[in-house]
Amino acid sequence: MKKNIDASIIIIGNEILSGRTQDTNTSTISLWLNSIGVKVLEVRVIPDIEKVIVETVNVLRKKYDYIFTTGGIGPTHDDITASSISKAFQIKYQIHEEAFKILQNYYKPGEFTEGRQKMTWMPENAELILNPTSGAPGFSVENVFCLPGVPSILKSMLGGLKNRIVGGEPILSHTISLRTVESEIAKSLTKIQNDNKDIEIGSYPFFHAGKLGVSIVIRSENQSKIKNCLSQILDFIKKEKIEIVER
Amino acid sequence: MKKNIDASIIIIGNEILSGRTQDTNTSTISLWLNSIGVKVLEVRVIPDIEKVIVETVNVLRKKYDYIFTTGGIGPTHDDITASSISKAFQIKYQIHEEAFKILQNYYKPGEFTEGRQKMTWMPENAELILNPTSGAPGFSVENVFCLPGVPSILKSMLGGLKNRIVGGEPILSHTISLRTVESEIAKSLTKIQNDNKDIEIGSYPFFHAGKLGVSIVIRSENQSKIKNCLSQILDFIKKEKIEIVER
Repeated sequence: MKKNIDASIIIIGNEILSGRTQDTNTSTISLWLNSIGVKVLEVRVIPDIEKVIVETVNVLRKKYDYIFTTGGIGPTHDDITASSISKAFQIKYQIHEEAFKILQNYYKPGEFTEGRQKMTWMPENAELILNPTSGAPGFSVENVFCLPGVPSILKSMLGGLKNRIVGGEPILSHTISLRTVESEIAKSLTKIQNDNKDIEIGSYPFFHAGKLGVSIVIRSENQSKIKNCLSQILDFIKKEKIEIVER
Repeated sequence: MKKNIDASIIIIGNEILSGRTQDTNTSTISLWLNSIGVKVLEVRVIPDIEKVIVETVNVLRKKYDYIFTTGGIGPTHDDITASSISKAFQIKYQIHEEAFKILQNYYKPGEFTEGRQKMTWMPENAELILNPTSGAPGFSVENVFCLPGVPSILKSMLGGLKNRIVGGEPILSHTISLRTVESEIAKSLTKIQNDNKDIEIGSYPFFHAGKLGVSIVIRSENQSKIKNCLSQILDFIKKEKIEIVER
């Protein structure tokens, strides 16, 4: 098994690029992927333009183990993800029979309108991603998983993907928050990072309840390496008499 | 003057990719750029890895009129934006005298420590972006503008950039929210989009106070085109007896 499994997220939607809508799906997907041992290495936010979607998917799906797209699988004219994925893979775009049956059962008689039927058009033989919230499924083709843009619906669909994503060791993290400023700890932290090259140490200033502070985040697949690194950090914190806010 | 001025945002930071921190800077920068007539066409979130930063900056700065980076300009070991930008442009990385003077005046005697001095290392001849919140300036090289990652500090720095960004016509938008579902309006909306090809019409389902709805967003530089498109939308809403929640 490959040790490090990686992924990229493609957020499709003009509403994110225009600033009108705040993306929250990146964080939802990343946290979930971390928990099953997949590390997100790149996120791209792109507009609802077929050519851009096709090109972006084709570049990234060869570069990363898994690709997740969000957005553009609803019934309106600006929902072009399914047709674009078909183009990217040069697969026929057609009604997906299983998806059609699901939505036929989901809606009351007479309510499975032409607009809703559009949501069953997908790349031929796409694997469905079931939607426990609002019926309309997402789908995957090879290593590309297409999810909706509405955060609550997306969240409810991730659980169903668990057995289809093969991850590595879960990425563990430990956070310690200090009453200090980054410049005070920069030198000691650099030394610790140099002594622990295979661990990711991040330093993030925060401003909370009128007070400045810094959170140090240690990330690794290896719990004992995190522990060891943490004790080095606690050593210099003690020596330099820095107040711990939370650990 | 070029009619459409575009931009790309590069969010630099492992904390966004890991899901630990929710990015809000994209929306802040995009909304501000819209207001001065610059349209964001792509956002990339990348890790604190020099090679990736250099490559991403060099690809995007040739593709878009303006590039904005956020993050990685603080004093710690994971702050490598300034040195990476120097590499991308093959410019010397050194102490910026003006930035040095600013921080020397900003801090009390004895507090301008080695850690803080690191924040004055920049590409040679970089233009400073003043920081009214916490002193340490950002900088720009050619069309690449480097801002901090802390949202409140970033926000306070945008105003100072206004005269350095030449935009086109401001991008205007109008939103109308309806008590309906997307599939009910998909057909009519497609027709209106086809009749108004130079206008961007987006359709966004929402779930608020226990009720479903759809927001339609019309975007264009031309107010009268927005008005005209809006009246076509109001026509079909009236005909189909759809309730307006907000307009």
